Amino acid sequence: MRIKEIKSILEKKGSDFVLFYNLGMEANPNMLYFSGYSGLGALVIPKKQEPFIIAPKMEVEKARKSMIKKVYSMDKKRFFDEIHSIIKRNGIKTRKIALDYNNFTINHYKYFKKQFKSIKTKDISLECLKLRQIKTNKELQILKKGFDYGNKILNKTINNFKDFKTESDVVAFLEYETKKLGLSLSFPAIVASGINGSMPHHEPKNTNFNRGFCVIDFGIKHKGYCTDCTRTVYLGNITKKEKDIYNFLLNTQKNIIKNIEINDNCGEIYGNCVKSLGKDSKYFIHGLGHGVGVEIHELPNLTLSSKDRIKENMVFTVEPGIYFPRKFGIRIEDTILMKKHPIILTKVPKDLLTI
Amino acid sequence: MRIKEIKSILEKKGSDFVLFYNLGMEANPNMLYFSGYSGLGALVIPKKQEPFIIAPKMEVEKARKSMIKKVYSMDKKRFFDEIHSIIKRNGIKTRKIALDYNNFTINHYKYFKKQFKSIKTKDISLECLKLRQIKTNKELQILKKGFDYGNKILNKTINNFKDFKTESDVVAFLEYETKKLGLSLSFPAIVASGINGSMPHHEPKNTNFNRGFCVIDFGIKHKGYCTDCTRTVYLGNITKKEKDIYNFLLNTQKNIIKNIEINDNCGEIYGNCVKSLGKDSKYFIHGLGHGVGVEIHELPNLTLSSKDRIKENMVFTVEPGIYFPRKFGIRIEDTILMKKHPIILTKVPKDLLTI
Repeated sequence: MRIKEIKSILEKKGSDFVLFYNLGMEANPNMLYFSGYSGLGALVIPKKQEPFIIAPKMEVEKARKSMIKKVYSMDKKRFFDEIHSIIKRNGIKTRKIALDYNNFTINHYKYFKKQFKSIKTKDISLECLKLRQIKTNKELQILKKGFDYGNKILNKTINNFKDFKTESDVVAFLEYETKKLGLSLSFPAIVASGINGSMPHHEPKNTNFNRGFCVIDFGIKHKGYCTDCTRTVYLGNITKKEKDIYNFLLNTQKNIIKNIEINDNCGEIYGNCVKSLGKDSKYFIHGLGHGVGVEIHELPNLTLSSKDRIKENMVFTVEPGIYFPRKFGIRIEDTILMKKHPIILTKVPKDLLTI
Repeated sequence: MRIKEIKSILEKKGSDFVLFYNLGMEANPNMLYFSGYSGLGALVIPKKQEPFIIAPKMEVEKARKSMIKKVYSMDKKRFFDEIHSIIKRNGIKTRKIALDYNNFTINHYKYFKKQFKSIKTKDISLECLKLRQIKTNKELQILKKGFDYGNKILNKTINNFKDFKTESDVVAFLEYETKKLGLSLSFPAIVASGINGSMPHHEPKNTNFNRGFCVIDFGIKHKGYCTDCTRTVYLGNITKKEKDIYNFLLNTQKNIIKNIEINDNCGEIYGNCVKSLGKDSKYFIHGLGHGVGVEIHELPNLTLSSKDRIKENMVFTVEPGIYFPRKFGIRIEDTILMKKHPIILTKVPKDLLTI
């Protein structure tokens, strides 16, 4: 996607090419974004010439199925060495280059500089993140389809909740349904019952549920694009006070979404949430939301200090939560597509469900 | 684990402390190794004083459950700033510091250096990897239990193979069984049937199986430690020639394992495999094996250029494979614990199974 746009960024920065690479277990988000390739190797996009992938022998077949037509085979051990010779062979200038400093380790940078001795490097991470925060129509199609899948799986899971005895049962079911469709998770699903819910990033346990609120945070990946949704259900007999807290958070969440407008400042949206939560805001211990795309967390940032502004075709979460230490937690999270008005992509009921 | 050993490495390197951090989705392997904590934040191990974790508010409860007793709460936005003041407050010297350059991005290094202006940094990644390659008794206990789980799940999956129609069905079952036990995967499981098996890192599809060989590569994580095992079954009616190729690879794999001795050079083990494969070695397009621990790929490396040597209490894979482009692939992988002689941890039958 958007090879034209990244080339024009290279032009502006005076960079001869940009290099993205992946030598680990995780896909490089920008390599995935610009090429559709999520395997091992490197993506080189020159300012002038055609982009190409350099992949280890065992990944070449996979790379050829990406959007990039030119694929070279390489030996992983001499990675930056081979990249250097292929770049030279293609007659690409090597005076100035753009790198993604967010996805470049110090050691790889050292190996890189050994090959490209007199090259000047510039960070392009922010430009990529900014480009990625406004989704194209093609991306929106992929995302919408992804949310259809994600919603279906989460709805089915909540409808089957009576069959589950442990947090692990729920996670197993969520993943089974995801994998059956040939999809993968966008992050390890969180299921946190009772006291466990007081930790926003609790790791699910295979012991019997704790009674009380149960937070379910789940997302899938469809063609490289993430979805994200959290619902909180109640296990057992709820008290009036607990019901009131849930509905208070739900109304806060609904109001935040309803009031989001194009050009809103994300730090202010966060501030308004804190105001709405009043004295409970001290139990709101994470960001209000984040962009969603090839990464589960990208721009915009809906946090206190954020200066990001809401634009058309942004896709981001709104997920206020309150966490009472060593008691319980509640989080309600939707993912929003911003058009003239916000459109909720996570079509899973939010009214409190007691099980 | 092994706080004493890392402190003695710091002593030798003349470093005042080592800092590991994680601000992303993946656990930092060294933070996990030395503290048992896999969440967001930082682990500081001073040469002299007690080690401590700095975690965002929402992860503090989780961090307190780790092996490190001292936990500070911090604000993620001002990460390195807060680390700096907590280190100063603890009276830790800040002239020289050790960092893991394999898990430190260029951008985070820039933020870090803004706070620690005149500090000298040294890479400690290799020392950590070398320490981690020899497993302690406690680690071996965790690993053995992990392989028990992994073997059980893979055996059950292979026994149920008749029920599956697609690669995704198999992956869904593997993951379901894993999650039910409250465990997670050590990497996205690979199931590659027929022509798909010619790509070692194929992504499973939810369309009907291709007939022929079907590669299943699967591992779980138990208390942070990975398992790894590959089996290849045959779907349909096998020809004599195909049977011969499988048995040829199987015998090669068995012989390699049988012959491994303490102090063997890993590059030579790889070379012997290439020799045994003869003319088929051109279809052997990846490494022969890798260490397994808190990361799925760690030391030793069983590759052509490796100079690593086999030592007692190393845990590593032996996984020769042959991949005929656009035809099919076969891989047989065991994980070995090296004692006086190699002990196979992956107790899943290897004789060819036709389904």
